[in-house]
Amino acid sequence: MTAVDPAALKNAVDSAMPLAHSLFQELAQKTGDGVGIRREPYTPSEQLAHDLLATTAESLDLEVTRDRAGNLYMNLPGRDRALPRWITGSHLDSVPSGGNYDGAAGVIAGITVLAALRRAGIVPLRDVTVMGIRAEELSSWYAGDHDGHIGARAALGQLKKGELEAAVHPESGRTLAAQMAQAGFDAGAVMSEPPHLVPASIYGYAELHIEQGPVLERRGIPTGVVTAIRGAARARGIRCIGEYTHSGAVPHEYRSDAVLASVELIHELDRLWERLRNEGADLVFTVGKLYTDAAVHSLTKVPGEANFTIDFRSQDEATLARVTAGAQKLAREIGERRRVRFDLGKFSLHRPAQMDPRLRADLIEGCRELSIPMMEIASGAGHDAQDFAAAGIPSAMVFVRNAHGSHNPLEAMGMQDFALGTQMLGWLLIREPG
Amino acid sequence: MTAVDPAALKNAVDSAMPLAHSLFQELAQKTGDGVGIRREPYTPSEQLAHDLLATTAESLDLEVTRDRAGNLYMNLPGRDRALPRWITGSHLDSVPSGGNYDGAAGVIAGITVLAALRRAGIVPLRDVTVMGIRAEELSSWYAGDHDGHIGARAALGQLKKGELEAAVHPESGRTLAAQMAQAGFDAGAVMSEPPHLVPASIYGYAELHIEQGPVLERRGIPTGVVTAIRGAARARGIRCIGEYTHSGAVPHEYRSDAVLASVELIHELDRLWERLRNEGADLVFTVGKLYTDAAVHSLTKVPGEANFTIDFRSQDEATLARVTAGAQKLAREIGERRRVRFDLGKFSLHRPAQMDPRLRADLIEGCRELSIPMMEIASGAGHDAQDFAAAGIPSAMVFVRNAHGSHNPLEAMGMQDFALGTQMLGWLLIREPG
Repeated sequence: MTAVDPAALKNAVDSAMPLAHSLFQELAQKTGDGVGIRREPYTPSEQLAHDLLATTAESLDLEVTRDRAGNLYMNLPGRDRALPRWITGSHLDSVPSGGNYDGAAGVIAGITVLAALRRAGIVPLRDVTVMGIRAEELSSWYAGDHDGHIGARAALGQLKKGELEAAVHPESGRTLAAQMAQAGFDAGAVMSEPPHLVPASIYGYAELHIEQGPVLERRGIPTGVVTAIRGAARARGIRCIGEYTHSGAVPHEYRSDAVLASVELIHELDRLWERLRNEGADLVFTVGKLYTDAAVHSLTKVPGEANFTIDFRSQDEATLARVTAGAQKLAREIGERRRVRFDLGKFSLHRPAQMDPRLRADLIEGCRELSIPMMEIASGAGHDAQDFAAAGIPSAMVFVRNAHGSHNPLEAMGMQDFALGTQMLGWLLIREPG
Repeated sequence: MTAVDPAALKNAVDSAMPLAHSLFQELAQKTGDGVGIRREPYTPSEQLAHDLLATTAESLDLEVTRDRAGNLYMNLPGRDRALPRWITGSHLDSVPSGGNYDGAAGVIAGITVLAALRRAGIVPLRDVTVMGIRAEELSSWYAGDHDGHIGARAALGQLKKGELEAAVHPESGRTLAAQMAQAGFDAGAVMSEPPHLVPASIYGYAELHIEQGPVLERRGIPTGVVTAIRGAARARGIRCIGEYTHSGAVPHEYRSDAVLASVELIHELDRLWERLRNEGADLVFTVGKLYTDAAVHSLTKVPGEANFTIDFRSQDEATLARVTAGAQKLAREIGERRRVRFDLGKFSLHRPAQMDPRLRADLIEGCRELSIPMMEIASGAGHDAQDFAAAGIPSAMVFVRNAHGSHNPLEAMGMQDFALGTQMLGWLLIREPG
């Protein structure tokens, strides 16, 4: 049973689409860098986006607040203000030379839903807060021992001690804490004060985001209901140590060839991936960097060193455990047989985040009621939703079809598709009977 | 039947060994750079070596001459001066931070043989000329479209038009022609005048050289008789073009992964190498450089480009043809299956140089007569002897055991082994009955 009339919701969202359109346009104008979009965490470029959304929220008569870390909250009061509230939103920062939709689409979708509700005179059962989150993309800007997703994790009290000081901007050499201070925020207070968000007072977290892969577009489906956010097991600095020798004068049996050993290891993992796919496992495997030492390597030297990275991602933690164990076993076997030494380092594990089954079912029901084509899909990229899920808050994500991938200026989300995703989000936020 | 008394030859060479020892020592002192040896072509450091050898030759009353390219000739007149002469020798330049024996050992061995003959009062049937050759290592110093081995190829009239201008020193930006002019040599005259050496007037070319691989050392054998100098088929700049995409969000079927495709190609060539070894083919296979683009690659991007080199070497031209054809076929198949494009470029072919079978047999006979342990061995590295062989001059090479490889400061040739190699060289040069 639902309190929502699908046709009325569709109409209300459609009538709010001009607002969404103008927000995307103004964001692109104000934060374009000539090639792509630049909304760097805790700089005036990110602040521009926050200011634009806050001004809009005020014009809609929403309650506008901020936390110590600079996250923006734009609240529509519900009928029963004592109930745990909905939070919806996403991040307002971008990667360097990024696209206009990654992150911002989720915040604008939330504001569009609230504008539609205001216009239609619908008051939801519980408060609905749209959150403009800080610094989700920190890993694209800052090096050092940090876990990214700063805004969401700060709001939920999940930052590690010293993390804001450990994140360093490679160009300026400045720590994130120093950059936050320059932007008017107090990193010390972020760490020492109680978290702004308390899971017990949150009913659920819902995030609309463009799909960052090509699946929806290739299959001709406008929206996706996310099953889980893939976890990752990553080795950032694998080294294979062999011995540099003359490429012509040293026969096979006296070589310790770091490239041929690394190539065998990577190829065997590629074959393991194929077997796991055939078994129906969810897995992607990427060696994004692979290189011999440019200071030493030569056409005519047997390579004495090779370096590479491994990024395994899966929605299934057991699959991640299986492939990392496989890599370690292969490294031992191949290293011994080929007279080289593999140093895999430690695989860093990011656990998969399961989306809440009930909220997924609600979204699927909404698509049926609203006649919106959808598919269930795993998220390969990380999102703020994983941090809410990790905090025990039931979380859901809506994907919107997007061409040309993400993290580049060519992101292309159609406004028709965005309207469908926003309807789904609206459905989820107000579907409870009063 | 031979004119040589093995015991007398041994004694004569042994009695000349102090000269060899002092020449090596003086060379190391005068051309050491603190870490290794630096005898850069057509600079005062190479000239020092030429001057030291010329002075020694004059003190032995040899005929000392030079050609337009600066090669040094130190001649012991034979009994019949109308006969085609022997040439023995090697190069006097080194690689940057090289070892003291690569090249110089062959010139000093020649001088040591002549000193031994002088001392023993042995006059050979025909003239024996020790040649101190220029700029064999040019590829280690100069970029540009040149084929290295400048001294030998200049003496034999084998330089390509424009080659001395095309060779450019990457640090100074100076052409080899300009560097030669600074050293007092006229590149124009080198190219325009008739070659200094005429194959018809040369009986044979013999070169002693340290082995640059580990085979003699690992097998505990002091000397080698070279069967052939391996040719090479090389691709210097292979590119594999795929598509950069998100490592988490793009499933297998939509990827064009340049690393996994390159890895499959290289691994298949590695397996082809294994099959050919099992068939008894002579081949080495090296991917000395392999790298993704450091400006673009990332732990979390499917790699859109990979670059690598291939160096195949064999004493058998048919084997080189087979593996290059294999690489091209694999590149087509794998490229199509994996949605990437391989650009192998053109394989540059350096033909193998066969050592003269009669001279090889003579050396093997000499080892038996002189009780010197030897093995037959292919040369993986290039040597001046290949240019003499290419000019149709019967050529032979003696390898001397050497630890720690070559082209580095740690080359380690024992003087006992050098004495054995020098005896073999002496045997070859005077074995003809008078």
